[in-house]
This record gives sequence, C-alpha cells and structure tokens, in this order.
Amino acid sequence: MIIVLKPEASAEVAQELLDQIAAKGLKPLHMPGSERVVLGALGDERVLAELALEGHPMVESLKPILAPYKLVSREMHAHDTVVRLGKVAVGGRGFTVIAGPCAVETESQMRNTTRAAKAAGAHGLRAGAFKPRTSPYAFQGHGLEGLKLLRATGDEFDLPVVTEVMETADVEVVAEYADALQIGARNMQNFSLLKAVGRAGKPVVLKRGMAAKVEDLLLAAEYLLAEGNEQVILCERGIRTFETATRNTLDLNAIPYIKQKTHLPVLVDPSHGTGVRDFVIPMALAAAACGADGILVEMHENPPAAWSDGAQSLYPEGFERLMAALEPITAAVGRQLR
Amino acid sequence: MIIVLKPEASAEVAQELLDQIAAKGLKPLHMPGSERVVLGALGDERVLAELALEGHPMVESLKPILAPYKLVSREMHAHDTVVRLGKVAVGGRGFTVIAGPCAVETESQMRNTTRAAKAAGAHGLRAGAFKPRTSPYAFQGHGLEGLKLLRATGDEFDLPVVTEVMETADVEVVAEYADALQIGARNMQNFSLLKAVGRAGKPVVLKRGMAAKVEDLLLAAEYLLAEGNEQVILCERGIRTFETATRNTLDLNAIPYIKQKTHLPVLVDPSHGTGVRDFVIPMALAAAACGADGILVEMHENPPAAWSDGAQSLYPEGFERLMAALEPITAAVGRQLR
Amino acid sequence: MIIVLKPEASAEVAQELLDQIAAKGLKPLHMPGSERVVLGALGDERVLAELALEGHPMVESLKPILAPYKLVSREMHAHDTVVRLGKVAVGGRGFTVIAGPCAVETESQMRNTTRAAKAAGAHGLRAGAFKPRTSPYAFQGHGLEGLKLLRATGDEFDLPVVTEVMETADVEVVAEYADALQIGARNMQNFSLLKAVGRAGKPVVLKRGMAAKVEDLLLAAEYLLAEGNEQVILCERGIRTFETATRNTLDLNAIPYIKQKTHLPVLVDPSHGTGVRDFVIPMALAAAACGADGILVEMHENPPAAWSDGAQSLYPEGFERLMAALEPITAAVGRQLR
Amino acid sequence: MIIVLKPEASAEVAQELLDQIAAKGLKPLHMPGSERVVLGALGDERVLAELALEGHPMVESLKPILAPYKLVSREMHAHDTVVRLGKVAVGGRGFTVIAGPCAVETESQMRNTTRAAKAAGAHGLRAGAFKPRTSPYAFQGHGLEGLKLLRATGDEFDLPVVTEVMETADVEVVAEYADALQIGARNMQNFSLLKAVGRAGKPVVLKRGMAAKVEDLLLAAEYLLAEGNEQVILCERGIRTFETATRNTLDLNAIPYIKQKTHLPVLVDPSHGTGVRDFVIPMALAAAACGADGILVEMHENPPAAWSDGAQSLYPEGFERLMAALEPITAAVGRQLR
Repeated sequence: MIIVLKPEASAEVAQELLDQIAAKGLKPLHMPGSERVVLGALGDERVLAELALEGHPMVESLKPILAPYKLVSREMHAHDTVVRLGKVAVGGRGFTVIAGPCAVETESQMRNTTRAAKAAGAHGLRAGAFKPRTSPYAFQGHGLEGLKLLRATGDEFDLPVVTEVMETADVEVVAEYADALQIGARNMQNFSLLKAVGRAGKPVVLKRGMAAKVEDLLLAAEYLLAEGNEQVILCERGIRTFETATRNTLDLNAIPYIKQKTHLPVLVDPSHGTGVRDFVIPMALAAAACGADGILVEMHENPPAAWSDGAQSLYPEGFERLMAALEPITAAVGRQLR
Repeated sequence: MIIVLKPEASAEVAQELLDQIAAKGLKPLHMPGSERVVLGALGDERVLAELALEGHPMVESLKPILAPYKLVSREMHAHDTVVRLGKVAVGGRGFTVIAGPCAVETESQMRNTTRAAKAAGAHGLRAGAFKPRTSPYAFQGHGLEGLKLLRATGDEFDLPVVTEVMETADVEVVAEYADALQIGARNMQNFSLLKAVGRAGKPVVLKRGMAAKVEDLLLAAEYLLAEGNEQVILCERGIRTFETATRNTLDLNAIPYIKQKTHLPVLVDPSHGTGVRDFVIPMALAAAACGADGILVEMHENPPAAWSDGAQSLYPEGFERLMAALEPITAAVGRQLR
Repeated sequence: MIIVLKPEASAEVAQELLDQIAAKGLKPLHMPGSERVVLGALGDERVLAELALEGHPMVESLKPILAPYKLVSREMHAHDTVVRLGKVAVGGRGFTVIAGPCAVETESQMRNTTRAAKAAGAHGLRAGAFKPRTSPYAFQGHGLEGLKLLRATGDEFDLPVVTEVMETADVEVVAEYADALQIGARNMQNFSLLKAVGRAGKPVVLKRGMAAKVEDLLLAAEYLLAEGNEQVILCERGIRTFETATRNTLDLNAIPYIKQKTHLPVLVDPSHGTGVRDFVIPMALAAAACGADGILVEMHENPPAAWSDGAQSLYPEGFERLMAALEPITAAVGRQLR
Repeated sequence: MIIVLKPEASAEVAQELLDQIAAKGLKPLHMPGSERVVLGALGDERVLAELALEGHPMVESLKPILAPYKLVSREMHAHDTVVRLGKVAVGGRGFTVIAGPCAVETESQMRNTTRAAKAAGAHGLRAGAFKPRTSPYAFQGHGLEGLKLLRATGDEFDLPVVTEVMETADVEVVAEYADALQIGARNMQNFSLLKAVGRAGKPVVLKRGMAAKVEDLLLAAEYLLAEGNEQVILCERGIRTFETATRNTLDLNAIPYIKQKTHLPVLVDPSHGTGVRDFVIPMALAAAACGADGILVEMHENPPAAWSDGAQSLYPEGFERLMAALEPITAAVGRQLR
C-alpha cells in the first residue's frame, strides 16, 4: 500500500504511522518527496485495514500497489534510479558500455584487452573470476587470484569492474574487490544468493534467467531491494527458445516493458544474447535504439585464443567499430555515449 | 551447384551446358554477370558428376551450395535484391514504412487512417480484406469488397497496397487488386499457397511463422523463388515463447542473420511482434538500428474502435511520433527514410 | 448460449425457438436428448436478450458457454463423440492404432508394410500422397497416383485409410479416395482449408500445430464443426521447444486437458512427437496410459530405405513389440486394443 | 577414455595404470567387473596419448567417451544404478512413490497428510522446509524447525524423507535431518551448491531446470558424481514452453532419453509438471508407462487450505485413487509398486 500524506503532515506523524505499520508486522517504507511525504507498507494488506488509515486526518490518499513486485515498481518510485559504479553512472542520460573478456585468463590478456577497451571508450570492465560452466570439466575460473588481477587491471586503466559472484560464501570477498556484483542467469532465482548480495551494500548487475519471464526478473530484483539495496541494474541477455540459429533469443521487447514497469536501469548483453560475433554490433545498436541504458559486451585481445566464449567475443577492432556506430544511435535517442 | 564459366565462354556454350543440366533432371539457372557468366544447377548434385563439368574447357570453377536453400542464398546471389511495389523500392538504401489498419473496415475508416499515414510520411498502405482468425466467430474480413476499397484508397492517396491472401483460389483476384501479396504467419508453410503465389508474378511479403526457425522461413521463400518469383520481401513478426508480457517475442537477432544469409529484403512488424501499442515505437527503432529494410506497422484512426488488433495499433499521433523518431535512427545507420 | 427445455416441451416449441434464434442472425443448434431437448444459439449473445428466453414457459434454464470454442466444448455436448472410419471406431472404449509409412512410395513398399501392420493388429492405414516438405527440393509425394495406390492397399488388407490433404482444390479428390482427411500441423490454422474440409462430409484427423496452444487446436476444430462436420479426431504430435534431444516435445499434458474440455476423440503421434525410433514405443504406452483414444504411428518395411522420416519409423518387428506392449497398458486403463 | 584390461591383468597392473593416469593430471576411475577390470581416465584425453596405452600388453582396448558427461553415462557404467533412501530402493524393479505436501506447515498438517500417504502405500515422504519462492513476500518455509518436524513425521510413519536444500551453508544441517537432499529446478545450475551437495555423502534428487535441455541436466548430475557421489536420482518436472493451459509442459520424452543415456534412476513430478490437480493422475500413469522409476507427487490433507501449490496437490482420496491406478500400469511394464 502507498500512503500519501497531506502537505501539512509533520515528521512526527509520519514516524508514528511507520511505527504502527511495523507493529502490524508489515515492512514500513519512508519516501520523503519535495512536496509531500509518501509512506509504504509492504506485506499482507488486509492487516492494514485495522489501522483505518483512510480516516486518518493527515492521510491524503491510499493506493494499493497492483504489481506483485513493490519496491522495484514505478508505482512506488516514479523516477529513474541511477546506479553509480565508481565514477560511472548507469541510468539517466548516459549510455554505459561495460566491456571485457568472458574470463580473467592471464595478466597480459587482461591488460591488452582492457587497454583496447579503454582506448575505444569503454566505461567499465567486466570479466569472470568465478565461472559458471555447464560441464564440470570446463575451466572454472581463477577464483581469488582472478579477482585480484581484475581489480588491478581496473585500477591501472581507471575503470570500475563488474564480476560474477556464484555463492553466498564468496559474496564478501567479491564485494571487496569489485565495484559491482553480477548475479548470472543461472542464479537469477538462487534466492539465498539474492538475499546475501542484497545485504552486501554494493551495486548489483542482475541477469535475466534463460527461462525467466520479465516479471520473474523483477521479482528477483525485489529480493535485492527488500534487503535494502537499491543499487540494482537489470540485464537482458537472451532467453531459450526453439530457434537454433543463435545461442539465445535476445528479447528486446523486455526493454520498453522494464522501462515502463520499473525505475531500475537496464543493460543488454548482445554477446550472450546472440552467441555470434557478427550479430553483436547490430544488436547493440538495437538495444540503444529501444531504450536500454547501456550494454555489457564481451571482447578479447584475440578471440580465437579465448578460453571461453571466443565465438561471441569482439576483436579490439570490432569493439572500436561498435563504439563508433553507437555514437549517432545514442545521439538519435537523446543519450550521451561519452 | 554454382558453375562459373571462363570469361571467354560464349553464349552458345552457356546454353549447351544449361541444356545438359536440364536433361539430367536438374533445374538450370542462368546468371549473366558483368565479367563472366555463372550458371546454376539445382537438385540432386550426384547426378551432375556424370556431366564431368570440372573437366569442361570453358568451366572455370564449381562450387557446391552449402545452405539448404539455394536461390535465396547469398552464395548464389551476392547483391541485395530490391523489390519494387509500384513507385516504392524495398531494400537498398531506403527504409520503407508500410502502415495501415489491421482490417479494411469502412470507407471512412480507410480514408481517415490512410490520410494520416500519408501525411506523416508512410510509403505504403497495408490492410486485410481476408482475415485469418483463431476463432470462426470472429470477423473474417470483407473479402472482395474489402480488396476494392483498399485499392481505391491506395489510389486516392497514391500509395502501393499490401494485403494478405489466404488461399490458392484467391491468388488471382488479390493479385489483380494489390501491389504485393502477403502470406501470413499461419500460412508460412502452406506449401500449396506458396507455389501458387510464386507463380502469380507479383511481389510477395512472406511473414515468419510463429514456430518457424529462420532457416524454415528461408526455405519457405525458396518455394517462391523456385517458381520464378524473385520479388520476395521477408518479414519478422515475433515468435512464440514462454514470455507472456508481450503477445509474441520479436526476434531481432533474425535481422542480421537474414541479411548475412540471403539477398532478400526484410521488414519487421513491431505491432504483432509486441502486441502492445506502447512498445511499437521503441521496437520499430530497434529494427531500423539492426539493419531491417523497413517496417510493417498497424495504425488506426481510432484504435479503441478497431474491429481487431486495437491494442497494438498506433493512433495517428503515435504514427507521427514514430516517423519523427525514425528519421535520426535511419540516418545514423546510413538509410534514407524520405 | 445453451437453452434447456422443460421435459414437456413439444417438438413444435423447439422448432419455433430455433426459428427465432435463426431470425436473429445466430446459428441455431438442436440437441435432442433422452430426457429433454437442449437447444443452442451461437453468435453474439447480446442479441439473444431480445428474445427474453428466460421468461419463456417451456424454457427450463439458460447457460452461457464460457469457452471460446462452442460446438467442440463438453459444455455443449457432454458425451464422448465416437468417429467411424469405415468399420473402425475412434473414441469410446476402444484404443485405435493407425499405422503406416510416412509416404506412399511404391506398390511393394505399401503392400509389404501394410501386410506387417495388419498382421500385428493395426486398425487403420496411414500414408501420405501429398507431402508438406520444408524444402522445395525434397520429395513432394506421388499425388493422385499415390492416393489410388493407398486406396487399393487399404482395400486389399481391409483397413480404412487416412491421408493428408494440403489444399482446398484437392479436398474433393482426397475425400473420394480416403476414409479420413488429415490436416497437417503446418496447416492447422489454414482456415480456408479447414472450411473446405469441414464441408467435405468425411471424418477428419486434425493435427496440432507446432506453435499452437491446445486452445488454438480446439478453435481450429471449431471451424470444422461450424461447417457441420462433427466427425473430428484431434491429434497431439509434439510442439516446438528449446529441447533439441528430440525432434519435438510431445505434450501429453494436452491429453487429459483435451478429454476434459471437449467431447472429441484424440490420438497421439509418437513418431513426430519424438523423431527417434527408440522412443516411439515408450511414448505410445504413455499416451495410452494418460487417456488417449489411440495412436498414429509411422512404420516401414525397411526404415533406412524410407524416402522420408526413416529415423522415426518402426521396423515391422518393432511394431509387433509395440502392439504386444500396448495390450496390458490399454487393459490397465479399461480400454480394448483388439 | 575407457580402458578395458585383459582378463589376465593383475590388480598390481591396474593400480600401476591408475597411478600413471593420476600422474598426468587426469581423474582415474577403477571399475572392477566380474570378468575383467575396466579403468577410466577423465580429463583432457590428448594427455593420455603420452602413456601409449594402446600398446600396453595388459590393455585389451581403449574407447573414448563420446558424451560430454562421463560418470553419468551408460558408456562408462552400463548397469542401472539403484539409490537407497533408508529401506527404500529407487531404480531397479520397483516403482517408487514419494508423496507429501509442498511445504511443512504444521504438526497436524504433516501428521494427517503423512498418515494418509502411508495408508495408501507411499514409499517416501517429501515436504519443503526451505522454500524457493518467486516473490520475497511469499511464505519462505519454516527452516530448521520445519526440518525437525519433517524428520519426526518420517520417523513416526517409518518413511524416508526428501527435502530441498537451497544453499551451500545449509547442506550440512539438511543432510543431518533428511534421507535425500533435493536440488530444485531453479538451482539446477547453481554449481556451487551442486559441488557442496556432491560432497555431503547423501542421496540426491536433482530436478531439471525450467530451461534446461536434458543434456544440461546430465551435466549437472556429472557435477555431483565428479565429487564422488553416485547416489543421484534425476527428476523431470516440466519445462517452460508457450503453452499456458498447464503450469509447465511435462517432457516425458526425456524419460526414455535419460534411460538410454545414463544409468541413474529418474522420477517424474506430475504435480509441478502440470500444475493442475485433475491432470496429476493421468500424467503419473504416463510416467510409469514410459519407463520412469517412480514419481514425486504433492498431496495435502486439505489442498484448498495449503499455504502453497494447493491447486496441484492431490486430496488424500485422490492419492488413494492414484495408487490404485498405478498398480496395473506398473505391472504392465514389469515393475513392482508394492
């Protein structure tokens, strides 16, 4: 329930109401605005009836939240959230490009790839230290050593770093080294991990699961916000369909849907969304055109030698072309690339 | 098999080879180029071995066609095909917008909707006279009367018209009134209809089926070209997936895939691809950004009163905004909107 | 609307009401039962209000039909429909096995395959004379000659024959030679064909489309019944999903759903439903266990030599094992195999 | 690589070869059979070449393992694995029924439901103490208190208990109270959890993810076996498709596929596989008919009052009917229900 107070309502009245909401076992929310204070009450709304808020002299109106997600909803929070990764803002007027290799492999691979990314204009660096792999016999990532190398590379080139965390026990250490914690598609409904990451106090990039409806993605984000973390970036990365020409089917319909329903920024990952290097640039442009707040894209100094995802990684030269092509498209939709 | 002749090969030699190919029960193709003549032979390539073409003094090289589709393939035909609908070209440098109501309803609905479309800059008019409807109790279209009204409206506003043909017996009459024949998603693998439309000698708009892989779409187009019709425009209009937030999942990955594999132009239908009016403009922009040759879009003078598809039809004012938004995006990718 | 008359209502009263319904532009239905007469009125139910039927002295009750399909619904027709193919009944207590090769190839292939089918206990023969093929270069069937050979083989072994019709123009000739007309998955929403087949007065086997919801299948069947043909058999044959281990995903959930919602019999095609010979028998048994009225199964005297669908066709020996395995399963669910 | 030794090879030779395999950084496997010893070597097979095993005097033959999964494959382990949950065997000749409510709610709910399950012939008890819920505001389970109550109920009615574990940190405590640890669909590719559960030394029930190909499921199981745990039971529970008539699409094709490719037993969950109470019995019968080793089924003393999944839970009376209906079907396929 959203509770709009009258302009003349005092801070004491607001606090008193929040206490009553909490006493009923509901989660109280305080959303002070420039003109009036709005309160929220999350949980079983039938209990609220007992407070008879509609008759309270300082309550202007009550509005039920219709969406199954609450904190994530635009009904609750009308303005776009901007998430800060170090000096970089995601959401708002800018269009953010976070690039890097699938996995942290070696010092020279990280340095060469990142130098190229930075030179072409990337705003952030991504690479995996803990890798979720379908087969137990595939390379599983360098773990802590990978994390340290990623951090060092980010610092050297002055780029914030994003990397995946795969389990609760690793949240603390990943939060120590990374500017944002990524929750991968396979863990989108790993609710224990969502809760732990929600409590870590770091920005989060939450990727959509392969069989997740957009509403499921928003409910997964709600787990993060319900733990008090509002620094959440969503990411569309393709869903599983019958089409086999591409690795996944990039669902760009999700972008205007997400922008309409929620205040959180959303990125598109055209690398996993297609699985084919040649299609990464056109789909990155499409993402920019339909309203995404940025992209998460795989590149590698030498894709054929990449330990994973080589087929969908851009060459440094391809990444340069991508940035050049994004320039007029982002301008056309009123966004700033640089 | 593609058979490249030497530059000095005469027209007689080419004809002789074509005759030999035909005599073996294969389909012969003649593709004269500016520098040399290329021949094609479609069918069971094992039979070709008997002609021992690799040893023929006027044959420069032989190249098998690897794709299951042949005439549709870029291997066979490297340059983009441009299809002409009256004065309008689809494919090439332009970006084509074909707009109109879902169905031909009344004279005033057609005139008011088309006037608005024309004023905002539409290049072509679309509307259904024969309507495929999931339920037998839904409005099935005005048939011949609808066709005549569509033609008259197109003529009045000087716009070429595209309309769906649903069965073999109607091909002739639809070809008489329309500038292009549309084959709908539900009939994409109605092979009898494909053959009949292929023989009609009119441009075709072939929509992708709801469960069709892109390769299936290209093979369906091959049916049209195999009948001698090269004036084929493909159309992505969304596929069926588990996502229920939108009517279909628009598969824009298909656009760069199609542009890579085939020489045929491709449109996107953001109306059926989303089913939601608010998402039509962003997805139309995304289509332009990723390389589509145009869009097929539903609009109506008064969508809430539309007899079908009202929820996904743009208002005239929305269509104006769409055209204005397309201008800088098409320019950004080097295409001309007007 | 379903209109239940009082037990004492005379035939004249019923006729009078049917005339009034027709006069309002609705489709009248007459459903005499053993205890009382039930009438139906299909179309815009608002018009019915003008007849004030609820006040008519001979009307016991009125019941709106909630499903989007009407004639197909159990609300309208509570008892199971039994469809007769020659001497064979589909629906009711029996479990019907219709077997045969994918396509009519040669006289000896038809005779050898059918002899084996008959010997093992098949009730009907299936084979295609008109073949829908994804590629225009694949074998398209023998057409009329194939039809004649199919008919002759069915007569020789005293088996009713089922075969696909692919276009309106062929309905008459296929109806002349076959005991039942099959509408293939790719034509499930070819509404022109549905109407023509609905008028042909022959039993129909309607296969579910690859992207069709079960409700779409029932609405497609409604097209057939709306033309006056109640001899309709539905067929589940697998849908398109992301799973690539099998050709399609056989959706057996559809069987209890269909049996609950409609009175029409339903077959399962485990050959197309799996695409893998080894899985045909287990899935045929599963179909019998969950309530299907029979199966449509591909077999061939020599599958590796089959012109199409060899990988999913049973050997004669496999078909014998299938029949032996079906015996106790059908008995377990109270159905009779022989 | 599978390495078959000659019948005369001694135990010392086998050990020597295993040591050499381990020294190359590969995982050695020892599979003594009744007639001869078979060894395995998992990992990069190119390294094996250096051992020149094909020339070893005691090696009879070498066979590469073609499947991407190894320990899970029938190529490696031809005979069916039987997993023991207390006194109950899963796999082999029996057909196992594990029943219970979605969640542990109260002592009386657990006792009443379990009494009914036991009376009707259930072999095991299932109920969730840690519940994965799409919304953070839904009931999340009683946690440790729920576990204790589940254990007590299982002991009272002498039934082994299966329950879900959702995170690495809980593996130990769940392993203390449960006879088998369930990994839910949403965690099928939570690789950290798979590894932790693989090391827990308890039988595991691994459910297929909603977007997981069967091959992905087998690779997830490989994670468990690679940690040394062979007590793994697979479970098909429905996948996400475009069909909305049922909660999921139960993919029974997966059953014969799994039985062909792997030696592990497989259950079917017709409750989540359909989401509709009326379809649970027919789909359970279908599962038995196509070769499943048992079912995992939801029942509740009073489904309308269930805190979750009430719509798909059987009443006690429905569960009795299920057991009665399974009797002849399991007998028909040569399995023993009791």
